Amino acid sequence: MMAQAQPRIVALLHGEDQPGIVWKVSGWIYQRGGNIIHADQHRDGASNIFFQRLEWDPLGRDPLEEMERFRVFAEVELEMRVRTCLSTYRAKLGVLVSKVPHCFHDLIIRGLTGELPGDIVCVISNHTALRSEAQRYGLPFYHVPVTDSNRDQAEAEQVRLLKAHDVKLVVLARYMQVLSGGMLDELDVPVINIHHSFLPAFSGARPYHQAHRRGVKIIGATAHYATAELDAGPIIQQEVARVSHRHSVEELIRKGRDLEKTVLAQAVRWHLEHRALAYGNKTVVFD
Amino acid sequence: MMAQAQPRIVALLHGEDQPGIVWKVSGWIYQRGGNIIHADQHRDGASNIFFQRLEWDPLGRDPLEEMERFRVFAEVELEMRVRTCLSTYRAKLGVLVSKVPHCFHDLIIRGLTGELPGDIVCVISNHTALRSEAQRYGLPFYHVPVTDSNRDQAEAEQVRLLKAHDVKLVVLARYMQVLSGGMLDELDVPVINIHHSFLPAFSGARPYHQAHRRGVKIIGATAHYATAELDAGPIIQQEVARVSHRHSVEELIRKGRDLEKTVLAQAVRWHLEHRALAYGNKTVVFD
Amino acid sequence: MMAQAQPRIVALLHGEDQPGIVWKVSGWIYQRGGNIIHADQHRDGASNIFFQRLEWDPLGRDPLEEMERFRVFAEVELEMRVRTCLSTYRAKLGVLVSKVPHCFHDLIIRGLTGELPGDIVCVISNHTALRSEAQRYGLPFYHVPVTDSNRDQAEAEQVRLLKAHDVKLVVLARYMQVLSGGMLDELDVPVINIHHSFLPAFSGARPYHQAHRRGVKIIGATAHYATAELDAGPIIQQEVARVSHRHSVEELIRKGRDLEKTVLAQAVRWHLEHRALAYGNKTVVFD
Amino acid sequence: MMAQAQPRIVALLHGEDQPGIVWKVSGWIYQRGGNIIHADQHRDGASNIFFQRLEWDPLGRDPLEEMERFRVFAEVELEMRVRTCLSTYRAKLGVLVSKVPHCFHDLIIRGLTGELPGDIVCVISNHTALRSEAQRYGLPFYHVPVTDSNRDQAEAEQVRLLKAHDVKLVVLARYMQVLSGGMLDELDVPVINIHHSFLPAFSGARPYHQAHRRGVKIIGATAHYATAELDAGPIIQQEVARVSHRHSVEELIRKGRDLEKTVLAQAVRWHLEHRALAYGNKTVVFD
Repeated sequence: MMAQAQPRIVALLHGEDQPGIVWKVSGWIYQRGGNIIHADQHRDGASNIFFQRLEWDPLGRDPLEEMERFRVFAEVELEMRVRTCLSTYRAKLGVLVSKVPHCFHDLIIRGLTGELPGDIVCVISNHTALRSEAQRYGLPFYHVPVTDSNRDQAEAEQVRLLKAHDVKLVVLARYMQVLSGGMLDELDVPVINIHHSFLPAFSGARPYHQAHRRGVKIIGATAHYATAELDAGPIIQQEVARVSHRHSVEELIRKGRDLEKTVLAQAVRWHLEHRALAYGNKTVVFD
Repeated sequence: MMAQAQPRIVALLHGEDQPGIVWKVSGWIYQRGGNIIHADQHRDGASNIFFQRLEWDPLGRDPLEEMERFRVFAEVELEMRVRTCLSTYRAKLGVLVSKVPHCFHDLIIRGLTGELPGDIVCVISNHTALRSEAQRYGLPFYHVPVTDSNRDQAEAEQVRLLKAHDVKLVVLARYMQVLSGGMLDELDVPVINIHHSFLPAFSGARPYHQAHRRGVKIIGATAHYATAELDAGPIIQQEVARVSHRHSVEELIRKGRDLEKTVLAQAVRWHLEHRALAYGNKTVVFD
Repeated sequence: MMAQAQPRIVALLHGEDQPGIVWKVSGWIYQRGGNIIHADQHRDGASNIFFQRLEWDPLGRDPLEEMERFRVFAEVELEMRVRTCLSTYRAKLGVLVSKVPHCFHDLIIRGLTGELPGDIVCVISNHTALRSEAQRYGLPFYHVPVTDSNRDQAEAEQVRLLKAHDVKLVVLARYMQVLSGGMLDELDVPVINIHHSFLPAFSGARPYHQAHRRGVKIIGATAHYATAELDAGPIIQQEVARVSHRHSVEELIRKGRDLEKTVLAQAVRWHLEHRALAYGNKTVVFD
Repeated sequence: MMAQAQPRIVALLHGEDQPGIVWKVSGWIYQRGGNIIHADQHRDGASNIFFQRLEWDPLGRDPLEEMERFRVFAEVELEMRVRTCLSTYRAKLGVLVSKVPHCFHDLIIRGLTGELPGDIVCVISNHTALRSEAQRYGLPFYHVPVTDSNRDQAEAEQVRLLKAHDVKLVVLARYMQVLSGGMLDELDVPVINIHHSFLPAFSGARPYHQAHRRGVKIIGATAHYATAELDAGPIIQQEVARVSHRHSVEELIRKGRDLEKTVLAQAVRWHLEHRALAYGNKTVVFD
């Protein structure tokens, strides 16, 4: 999808709504000879915030310079917060995982087969179970054990590793530890988590067991930006599947795996394509 | 679906699992010349409970007598709890509703067009908004106002009306009051409620507002047997619909209506067809 | 949703894509002091067509005059085809139905309870089965029998009735006759049909029987703009439901009814809100 | 799920319906001291065929002997066709694939992580694109080119390889060639194919292009038993996903991949667990 000769510019902006904002943005691009390929916007009436995602071909102009010029325009003249990248850019991803392997394999295979506009560059785990698997894929694997007593050092080590690999997005691919607020601040890059329930139902531990006990007829999975509060960050994507009284906890777990893989991969791709944007405790997703 | 010359017998049984139970039940019917049309069973391994739904044609024999004989067999010899009815039986339903009319209309239209194997015989409301609508359908309408100070008398009046109409199932079609445990005991017939969220998420008041605030990507509706604890009874059916950042609370409410109607009608039909059975805080649904 | 003091202007435009189109349109509104509430656009890269839906508050200006001025601007200066209306406008709908009543009731109830931004003004049927039902709702009912030999006269009569009622949208709510190309031309207003299958699978007669015979695991319903070719017009909306070997044809039919009602109502509402636009054999739907 | 000390017996039977069949089967097991863990049956009223799946613990008795004894009982005394296996049995699978890799990877990873009760033992392809991938997983890879002129020899070679590996199920994991009726007869084991559309819509080549052209609002994937007639065999499982005018063919293809993987894996697992049974052109699936 991203395979074009000349890179396009992608910009994701948001800020206080103001009269004429669409006109000003489209005019800036038009008058500099750019060709808008995709544009999508949203206006949150309640909070008076304007959101826009743009993808354009700068035609003759140098894409990097033009991108930088647009950033300045949007920040200074429009007072918007803006994220930009070229459509050819591939962000580096770090994956944290514990023992459950399906999201880990799924993300890596998607990376290998060209489904993700980014590159997984390292795997960190609090267990050694997936070491040889990671190495089979040619990925550096770091074992960072986490215990109640070493949490701070472990997090410091994780941050050090992720920064050393220049990671721009951290994916918790069924990583069974909560990252502290301090670690999230230190990292200073987005973290996407997959939770194996239809949040806000069944947050916390063993959600399929909770779901089975409650007798729900539908189970789900939720990908969200991680915040310091467990399972409470902005939701990016959710999917569900029907279950019945016939399904044991083990079958909920098995059925749920397919949801988790799809939902997590979708959220990661949306983020990498600059389609997902968190604000307050929600997201806008320009699908 | 239930239109056959000779009524069939429908039985729904459950109790402690025991060796040979399927053999004993099927043998009883077979040896008395009955012809099993549908049979479905479930075994909850964790709690060691056996569930079965049977629908059979007693061929030459008198259906009512045979049904009673089976009940005695199942209760005495198998020590099962059992509900039986003839397939031609039409239970009487009482509908409680407040002001929001979509589930009310939907249930009544389904009744009129032959979609429900039962008959709505009265409508009770704590408001008068739907009086003329009920009367247009030819249904008795009772206005029973409920306030903090008259709750006990109001509930007593509702029980009296429902009993006077010989109601066998009460449907809360967006009735915005919680029935007390005492009233549920007095009624002594099942009560099905529709809650406008994907329970256990967003129980209580204004669930679409809660869902909008949390930024979920999927909304839902849940039909459950009412218990004294708000929105916590055994779930019969749930449905969901996808939403996005573009949807306002009003649009969630509108989208949700279609879920609520379908889910409630499905639960009511399953109950009337003896397909749904509550045990503990769950249901078995033989769909 | 449409309840605001001052009417907004809604415009739906499409035409050959051209540089600066978004900028020109948003500039026209901005410079005349209008406040864009919603704007959504799409660009079909393959056919080079640009589509846009706009909803704006003309603030101090007279909405009707401003709407007309915009229409001229869009048609003359931008060479776009454009549909406009005020957000307070309620189109008149004519419903054609045969005997199957669920979509008929559903649409009317939605009309009565304020779910549709339009008014059903007449019901035409080739049967008399729903006459008393229509009259109970206070709607004029016309019985226009259709046979192989009187088709032309029958269609002429239908056109006459629909025009006499100033109908702006015709809804085929399970109307079991194909409208001829000549009648569609004569009518000169859009016609929305509900087909009870997941098109293009199972077009034509008795689709649930076809689906049952083929052993599909999912059934569906499709709302589309009617064209002279049976079940081949531009698809507006589709929904599906899971089925299994346990479901008889009768149960597919019953399950399908809920799909048909929801899908048809959704398509009608999208059309009335100027969200759906047919081009070639497809639609753009600005949901 | 299949991890138990003592193997259970699984039997899948079908044949002409007869009075007392459930009683006879359950009696046979009960009287020999077996403990039924799961039992599910279905009766196709139209064709008068009875279907049953049983899973039981033969308690003290030798499972293999008991399984054989049951087979004889079901075939001779009940005149049923019957498939039996022990719950610990792992069938050997052969995978045929062309170039598109997602189903190939997905099946293998599911095999590696214990999600499939069977073992992939060989990969055959008409291309070499996945050779090194297969070898990385430690799987024998056979390149069998297929052209218009060598089709018969190629099929003979495929049959020889699959038989040499004692394959009990062949999976066409996006294998872009139709197997001839002769080859299917020669193979004499079931073949499961994944088709990338919601059959019967868009059978044949390039279904996502067909779907895009038709402007459908939902796409799908279908797993079915392969027959000599292209895309016309008994459907085991189908899944769908919503799309809109915004999605290009490439995006339909990408979205479809997740459907194809899930649907194919589900069908393969159902087959391996003796839950899926083809009869006529349909399947019964005891989920």
